[in-house]
Amino acid sequence: MSSRLTERELIEKIRGRLPQNQAEIIKAVGDDCAVVHGFGQELWLYTVDTLVEKVHFDRGWHPPYLLGRKAAAVNLSDIAAMGGIPQHALLSIAAPLSMEESWFDAFMDGFLTRLSEYGVALLGGDTVKSISGIVLTVTLTGKVHADHILFRSGARAGDLIWLSGIPGEAAGGLALCRAGKGDDQQWAKLVASHLDPSPEVQLGMELAQSGLVSAMMDTSDGVATDLAHLCKESGVGADIMESDLPGSALLAEAACLTRCSPLDWALKGGEDYLLLFTSAPHHRQALEQLVGRCKREIFCIGRIRAGKGVSLINKEQRRDISYQGYDHFSE
Amino acid sequence: MSSRLTERELIEKIRGRLPQNQAEIIKAVGDDCAVVHGFGQELWLYTVDTLVEKVHFDRGWHPPYLLGRKAAAVNLSDIAAMGGIPQHALLSIAAPLSMEESWFDAFMDGFLTRLSEYGVALLGGDTVKSISGIVLTVTLTGKVHADHILFRSGARAGDLIWLSGIPGEAAGGLALCRAGKGDDQQWAKLVASHLDPSPEVQLGMELAQSGLVSAMMDTSDGVATDLAHLCKESGVGADIMESDLPGSALLAEAACLTRCSPLDWALKGGEDYLLLFTSAPHHRQALEQLVGRCKREIFCIGRIRAGKGVSLINKEQRRDISYQGYDHFSE
Repeated sequence: MSSRLTERELIEKIRGRLPQNQAEIIKAVGDDCAVVHGFGQELWLYTVDTLVEKVHFDRGWHPPYLLGRKAAAVNLSDIAAMGGIPQHALLSIAAPLSMEESWFDAFMDGFLTRLSEYGVALLGGDTVKSISGIVLTVTLTGKVHADHILFRSGARAGDLIWLSGIPGEAAGGLALCRAGKGDDQQWAKLVASHLDPSPEVQLGMELAQSGLVSAMMDTSDGVATDLAHLCKESGVGADIMESDLPGSALLAEAACLTRCSPLDWALKGGEDYLLLFTSAPHHRQALEQLVGRCKREIFCIGRIRAGKGVSLINKEQRRDISYQGYDHFSE
Repeated sequence: MSSRLTERELIEKIRGRLPQNQAEIIKAVGDDCAVVHGFGQELWLYTVDTLVEKVHFDRGWHPPYLLGRKAAAVNLSDIAAMGGIPQHALLSIAAPLSMEESWFDAFMDGFLTRLSEYGVALLGGDTVKSISGIVLTVTLTGKVHADHILFRSGARAGDLIWLSGIPGEAAGGLALCRAGKGDDQQWAKLVASHLDPSPEVQLGMELAQSGLVSAMMDTSDGVATDLAHLCKESGVGADIMESDLPGSALLAEAACLTRCSPLDWALKGGEDYLLLFTSAPHHRQALEQLVGRCKREIFCIGRIRAGKGVSLINKEQRRDISYQGYDHFSE
């Protein structure tokens, strides 16, 4: 008897088994990082992410240097999502015997370069043989002051919903790579979003320290799924205004070329690693000023409401899109 | 151009790339755990281990409950090897869509049961799809007082070399499972060594706190390789007396049945997860008394000497066996 689980079901199963009421553990499953009490007002963050060849990356078009950078970035983004400062990394590589030394060297170059941009030291890891492809697991620790940490669970009805960039660019980049257009300079921005995403560590810290944000996470599975997680943890619902979803001419053109829907990319495309956060409406001006000082742009895509689930609103139409994003486990 | 690396070469490559002279990092690659300064005299330990299906385990004979216990034990053993107290765990599972829910439930039961025996909480993790088999990566943190921590690097010429059990039992158990004898009660002890190894957390702490031990590690790749690592880190050599290697009638019988060499199992067989440690000869009596109080037995298998490499001595013959154990990466 085989019973297939989605990633969400699997995580819920694990969550149900986790110890409750352990004083030092503030958050186990259910956020971007696990959070435990450090000393004084300092909290420690832990995150782990696994990238599987042919599931999360394709060596055919992913240069090893950029894959190394991405393996670091995916975890840095989790620390960013809590407003934390990344600290130490561990790397486990399962690789087939056919892995070339030059591939490994370039991968490590990229991995260590990305880590060093954030002052993170690699502490160690494990190297083992795999039967088929490469499997990369990165563990990252971080720290954050207890007064600044941002959870997924803080959103309140009425809060505005913000994104730190254009959702769907990584999905567009992936589609272009799959279509053999990865080397075309015209698409460099989108392709880079897929091959070499930028973790929002600095912006995450600024937002967390500002006191203007009520809940935050990073986007890894598409807004439809990521926002549904945030809503569930906060016990609220969300309305996304389709007309407020940011896009670009480049993204629209890439969607046309690859016969994909830019709306699907925005809502269901994974691996953007943007910050998705909520803020009370009266903070809007202060928030935009803060982001302006960081020379960044953010986009308001909707509003938190009472109830549950994520709705997409287009003129008078409302449809539920909760959890319709990318499922790393079953897709 | 493909250039094949052994696990040791790969680790040395990574080691060459690690940051030197970062004040808070006491040990990166080169020991059972990475070690960083915590607060006060407390040091923090980090370890990560990956188990790959068909490389490290076979679902055909490894019950999921016991595999879960082993996935925890492998990491607990690394903390034990530094004399540490295990703290928190993270689990990443890459699994094919065909993974049965009942298999997963039993695995988690075993994993959490083993962790809870040492007061370790699972903080979270990651679940992703794999293309072929299951890949399990466990990250474990621990702590140890700076006055008690034991490194691989402390062995001095003249020190006696000790093992906390009989080496080769896990290799014997594996050979029996491969031969289809895993369910035979006659071999239960050996099979359990392979399927459900016991991490030496309590003994590791006692030894570390005793002040009687100069260097320590756990045995995961066979004494020939493990002791070579310890010697390299300590800048010494080692003589193992073949006549002092402990064995058992059961192990000899299993070797006969499976046409294997019990000496090969002892020296080259992986995954015993015993403690391998060194101690000045004048501590011998105190050490045996301590271990007796713990109701345990330890075996003196040789002596540290100046020079380098691990030699096996049988009567007048001496042969170099350095690094002849199991290589997880290339075998």
